[in-house]
Order: sequence, then structure tokens, then C-alpha cells
Amino acid sequence: MKYIRYRKEGTIYYGVLESETITRLDGNYIEGPVQKLSAVDSLDEVEVLAPTEPGQLIAIGLNYALHAEEQGKPLPEEPMMFMLSPTAVIGHNAGITLPTEDHRIDYEAELAVVIGKEAKDLTREEALSYVFGYTCGNDVSDRYLQKKDGQYTRAKSYATFKPLGPVIETDLDPSETPIKLTLNGELKQDSNTSDLIHSVEDILVEVTKVMTLRPGDVLMTGTPSGVGPLTPGDELEIEIEGIGKLRNYVSK
Amino acid sequence: MKYIRYRKEGTIYYGVLESETITRLDGNYIEGPVQKLSAVDSLDEVEVLAPTEPGQLIAIGLNYALHAEEQGKPLPEEPMMFMLSPTAVIGHNAGITLPTEDHRIDYEAELAVVIGKEAKDLTREEALSYVFGYTCGNDVSDRYLQKKDGQYTRAKSYATFKPLGPVIETDLDPSETPIKLTLNGELKQDSNTSDLIHSVEDILVEVTKVMTLRPGDVLMTGTPSGVGPLTPGDELEIEIEGIGKLRNYVSK
Repeated sequence: MKYIRYRKEGTIYYGVLESETITRLDGNYIEGPVQKLSAVDSLDEVEVLAPTEPGQLIAIGLNYALHAEEQGKPLPEEPMMFMLSPTAVIGHNAGITLPTEDHRIDYEAELAVVIGKEAKDLTREEALSYVFGYTCGNDVSDRYLQKKDGQYTRAKSYATFKPLGPVIETDLDPSETPIKLTLNGELKQDSNTSDLIHSVEDILVEVTKVMTLRPGDVLMTGTPSGVGPLTPGDELEIEIEGIGKLRNYVSK
Repeated sequence: MKYIRYRKEGTIYYGVLESETITRLDGNYIEGPVQKLSAVDSLDEVEVLAPTEPGQLIAIGLNYALHAEEQGKPLPEEPMMFMLSPTAVIGHNAGITLPTEDHRIDYEAELAVVIGKEAKDLTREEALSYVFGYTCGNDVSDRYLQKKDGQYTRAKSYATFKPLGPVIETDLDPSETPIKLTLNGELKQDSNTSDLIHSVEDILVEVTKVMTLRPGDVLMTGTPSGVGPLTPGDELEIEIEGIGKLRNYVSK
């Protein structure tokens, strides 16, 4: 099932997307059971919003071997977690604003996991049953600040730096899904979540040893190799098979 | 004014503390203007809770010169920010649970700033007008994981690792306030916020260049020198002049 959050004529709605048609729901799918309403909207008439408004946004660093190699970093033994500001989240078709053109600021295609139930101290076996679904994420990163600060929060939390969307797909095998990114139509990242060093289950186990996850929270699972810099005017498309394409542009 | 959040006979209340007497309020002081009610409670009959439930919990690293020196780290040119899970927050008199006795886990007394209004791109001049008030914070830190991970989120986000309280004081000069920590009655940290490398105004300016702060969010401003390890059974008291004493113990 593909869940979508969107705006039409100034009002925010939640719906289910089938082909190009959205069936409205009677509430926020993240907050509990919802019913389909009779109203439908056409995808091309609405503004697609980020499919969740996370309270906590947690990212995992260096979780694909070839990306760790391109960054010149050793592989972490355990999932290396850090937190980002949820106020950086934007949706499909929204613009990414570069705060400066003096720093190298990279795209990073990632599988994003949306939590469905309050979760603490999960076992590996039950972990995936706490997931609501999956969406595409872009972990936009200021490489200069990332290196300068050591801590990654600032480099990755600027407003507009966390595109999520276009929808949340509930039926997806996170252990083997192709993930691709194109920049201005050119293929730059081309991998599969089967190359994740720490699986979604392992990440959920390790993160919930520490903190409580809540419905709507997002885990970004790391990016494969092929990252590169953004320039104003660039068009980006992240495609995860089964979810769809998250398209964003870099504001001029 | 000293604002307090507390539980009595299973119900959570908000109030104003004067000496040992709490006057109840008609709502959450963080969310907007509140009125005093006629009901009063005695401080010794209530369970004091953390005075805010932050959506975002942001910490500043190495913000006192002598602490940076004791950690063997160079001084950051700009406030070095990272984010912690708000699910780690506990209140006055609550127990800190050490997840393991194999790691060195330290106390860190800090001035915590509670945000009062949505804030983005603040100027230095207006910054303090976005602060609701100040409380005592303890940035409990697993030194082994802090070093192992490089990123500080995990080491500092375990459940119970962020005591806050006992009250929020709205009338405080954050540029010159004594801050002390005693461990089992022995003075371990003894400093003054006049020794902060980056002032509260500077931190607010730098953090809001990146992210939007919201009412109830907390900025922890860094710890002075004198940090040290915790052991089950320890009793800790953090005193910031004008706010009061935040007392916690380490669970056995």
C-alpha cells in the first residue's frame, strides 16, 4: 500500500495512492487505523508533502562498504548513529536551498524507514513488525562542515536538507531493493539494499537499545557509493524500486 | 519566576513554585499564557517531573576551556552542536541507570536553555527574548562509546541519561551564574557561566542558522571541568544559582 500526504486548495490530506489516483483517508495513517473515504484526488492536481513529520530523525553513517571506501573511512563494527533536526524535512518536488556555494554540498540517496509503533529494546525477530513502511530519503550533507565539526548534526540539518517521499510503501523487502540516484538525468548512485552492512533489523535493534522510537520517526539507513556535489539548478531523482521516485531540485 | 511540572495522585500539573508552595496553573506554561488557579500544593507532597518535554534536545560540545583541556581537545571556533534523543530526559530525584558497568560513564553539569518561541535565524540582539527560561541539566556520557562512535548521539542518549530540573527559572542572567556539581557531597565541578566560550546568545544565533527551534526545545550549553565517573548508588546534586538544585541518584 502506498500512503501519501498532500495539500490541495490549502488543506492537508492523507490518502492511499493507486496508479495516479489518491483515495482520501479519514485521518493520519501514522497515528492509527484509518478508513478510506469516498473522495478521490488526481495526483497531478495536488502538492505532495513529506509522507511523515518525524519527531526524531536518526541517521546511520557509513553503512555501504563502497561509500565508506570513497569517504576514506573504516567500516563501523556497529551501526554508527547520529541525529538530525526534523525541521530539515521537505517533500517531493520541493527545492533544496544551499546555504553557501563555498562549501561542497553532496546528495546521498537512502532508504528511509518510518516507524509505526513505539519501540524500545526490540529483538531482531520482531524488529520489522515495528516498521510502518519505507520511503526514499536524501541525506544532503555539507562536507566542509561535516569535517570541520566532527559531529554531523550541523552539516546535515540545514532547512531543506532532508527530502523524504514521495510516498510510504508498506509492502517492501528492505533486505533486497534496488536504489538509484540520477543527477540531471545521469545515473550517479546505483546499488541495492542487499549491500547494507547493517540491515534494517540490526539498526532497529541497536537504536532501540538506546532510545525509544515513536510512530512517524525516521531512520535513514546510509547511502551507497557515488555521492557528489550539488549546484543551483540541479535536478535530482532518487528511485527505490517498489516505492517510486523522489524528485527535487536545487534552488537558484 | 520558577515554573514546575509535577505529578500528584497520578495527575500531571503545571505550577509556579514560591518557597515550598506550588500554585497550580491552568495549562502548560511552555505552550502559552497561563493563569494561576486557587489550588496550591506543597512541594514535599509531589513528584517533581522534568520541567519541559523537549521535541529537540541539542547539546554544545567543549564549551568551557578547562573542560576541553581535560578532554585533550582543541577549542571549537564555532559552537559544536549535536543532537540527543529527548527520550533520555528524566526529572529531579529520578534514577540514572547505567546500561553497563564496563564503560566509564561520566556526569556533566550544564546550564540548559528552554526555548519559548519558534526561532529561526535569530540575531544576537534578539536571541535571549526567544528563551523561556533556564534549568539545570546533566549530560551523562558513556566515554567509551563517545570515543568508539566518534558521533556523540549514542553515548549520550541512553534512557535516563538527561536529567533536567528541578524548575525553569525565567529571571536569570545566563552570562554570569555560578554552576556547581557535588558527587556524594563532595564538590567536583565549580565554575561560572561567565567561562562559557560561546555565550547563550552565540549558541542561539548559530543553531538557528541551521534549524528551527520550537517552544520547549532544550539547548545544553556544555560542561565545565571536573567531570568524572558514576557508580551505582552515587548521589549527584547540580546547583545553578537562581534555579536551585537538581538531585539524582545512580540506580543499583
